[in-house]
Amino acid sequence: MPALDLSADVVSIAASIIDIPSESHDEQLLADLVESALSGSSHLSLVRHGNTVVARTELGRADRVLIGGHLDTVPAAGNLQHRLDGDRLYGLGACDMKGGLAIALWLAANVREPVRDVTYVLYECEEVASQFNGLQKVVDAQPELLKASLAILMEPSNAGIEAGCQGTLRAEIRLSGVRSHSARSWMGVNAVHAAGEVLARLAAYVPREPVVDGLGYREGLNAVGIRGGVAGNVIPDECVVTVNYRFAPDRSLQQARAHVREVFDGFEVSVVDEADAARPGLDQPAAAAFVEAIGVVPQPKFGWTDVARFTALGTPALNFGPGDPSIAHQVDEWVSATQVRSCHERLFNWLQPSR
Amino acid sequence: MPALDLSADVVSIAASIIDIPSESHDEQLLADLVESALSGSSHLSLVRHGNTVVARTELGRADRVLIGGHLDTVPAAGNLQHRLDGDRLYGLGACDMKGGLAIALWLAANVREPVRDVTYVLYECEEVASQFNGLQKVVDAQPELLKASLAILMEPSNAGIEAGCQGTLRAEIRLSGVRSHSARSWMGVNAVHAAGEVLARLAAYVPREPVVDGLGYREGLNAVGIRGGVAGNVIPDECVVTVNYRFAPDRSLQQARAHVREVFDGFEVSVVDEADAARPGLDQPAAAAFVEAIGVVPQPKFGWTDVARFTALGTPALNFGPGDPSIAHQVDEWVSATQVRSCHERLFNWLQPSR
Repeated sequence: MPALDLSADVVSIAASIIDIPSESHDEQLLADLVESALSGSSHLSLVRHGNTVVARTELGRADRVLIGGHLDTVPAAGNLQHRLDGDRLYGLGACDMKGGLAIALWLAANVREPVRDVTYVLYECEEVASQFNGLQKVVDAQPELLKASLAILMEPSNAGIEAGCQGTLRAEIRLSGVRSHSARSWMGVNAVHAAGEVLARLAAYVPREPVVDGLGYREGLNAVGIRGGVAGNVIPDECVVTVNYRFAPDRSLQQARAHVREVFDGFEVSVVDEADAARPGLDQPAAAAFVEAIGVVPQPKFGWTDVARFTALGTPALNFGPGDPSIAHQVDEWVSATQVRSCHERLFNWLQPSR
Repeated sequence: MPALDLSADVVSIAASIIDIPSESHDEQLLADLVESALSGSSHLSLVRHGNTVVARTELGRADRVLIGGHLDTVPAAGNLQHRLDGDRLYGLGACDMKGGLAIALWLAANVREPVRDVTYVLYECEEVASQFNGLQKVVDAQPELLKASLAILMEPSNAGIEAGCQGTLRAEIRLSGVRSHSARSWMGVNAVHAAGEVLARLAAYVPREPVVDGLGYREGLNAVGIRGGVAGNVIPDECVVTVNYRFAPDRSLQQARAHVREVFDGFEVSVVDEADAARPGLDQPAAAAFVEAIGVVPQPKFGWTDVARFTALGTPALNFGPGDPSIAHQVDEWVSATQVRSCHERLFNWLQPSR
């Protein structure tokens, strides 16, 4: 594998890193190439943490910002190799998020004297369970390394700014019954029938649409799974409905839990999985200044993203990157070369306005 | 393995055949022993069909009855060997149905001049899928071999007469939706929520309790399974509710199908599995005479049993055997020695009243 040439055009860099396989848990090759490409840059101090590379300028600027992107992709499906078709750059991870990653790498290598210090975090295992997440590992092990007035994650956001993110909570509603032979069903109590009321409450549920820091969020409470049944001739004695509550950043995890328990009052509810929301933080000076510099109207982020990991550090965080998030993880994902260049140019002008 | 001694006491015969393993698909040893034990009886003509043994008297009597029992048991769970504890004979298949089988074998071997001709059917694979059922195989291949005015299956019925049986129909109700990310649930349509109406109809359903030929049946329409869900962050685009309709013998399969479609009008219903009910047939002279001879008040059979296979042949069929059906298939199943002797005595007196 040839070394990465980070002096190239940003779209060319995107194309070359698409061709480097980096499925989650298998990022070593790409991490090595990134580390090696940046190690020659005297303006950067590097820290390697597993297959996560942190590169920092140490210019003593009054402000420090963080620019992050993950190295990993979802598993390949015969779609690794890049292909440019008009404005569309295809290939595994083109959209999520080697387009954004290319921009971060270009900036790290080429902006030697940014007006604000920059911490670049190029991390592993974003696409898999949280316990493997490279960003979280650095948060846990060396939080001081991530200190910044603003964190920008270059996840696909159609070259717009998506601020904050909604939280997510998964809970199981467990219905119990009494097993019996289905030919003598009156001897039993059907747990699946009992789930009807749970589904009725879900169907009747009206989600909130609160405005937080000027952004309109949309919540949702949905069954994402249901299971019940023992055999074709047995009255089921258990049925489990798994619900997912996506909540706006004006609610804490505690409030989200209380809300779900209230909606399913009278039922056995157990929370199985949860992650905090992140406030958009657009009221904070660094974030407001960034939004103004980029010149777009920020949108709310509905899905949960790694920006929420910065909430624990008290750092406002935004998503800003090329690519349509709705085609992420699709076999024929692609990123617009125009969006890559546009994001690149705006970040470049923000870091080195004198150009 | 020593030969079967069919001159022994009927409870001893039950004990010895419990000790002969005969799980479904593995009945050859027991079938061989049965065939060999009966082959010395000049009053019987034998037909072997797989591991099913048919033994017939050919005395030219005006009437012919059929006495049937299956050779197989459910799989062993460390409970093969028989054990007599007071009146209780324990062991694999003690209840279902080596107690009844012992009676049939004793009668076949020892009642050399019954007042009615008898066809004994000792068959394989009752406890598994219908395609393997030994009785059905004889029905399909040599129906004339099973001709009789009455069929008595010696399945456990607590030494009472359970007449006819309810039919069973399984159908899948399929709900469709549109998949989306659960963080943007308004982009999708939740198929699990749509199942709420199906469950509501099931919960509100009032089953019929019709009287057929003097016996009170109890129907039931129940969910026996439900499944839906793609992943914890996806709005499910499909949910399938499996329902089981147990219907009284005054309804045909066609009527049962129409009823299920009517209950779930507006939904996608597909029948996956069905078996006809059997009318009790107590209005037919042979059945009525048997009931009178045995001297018990017949009860309806709620579960589906092999008696329904005789419906196709136009033969009234009853369950009459020792053992509590509610403990069939339990690891510690047992049969009452008193019930074994009582069923044995009543059948013996009916076949050879001059004794």
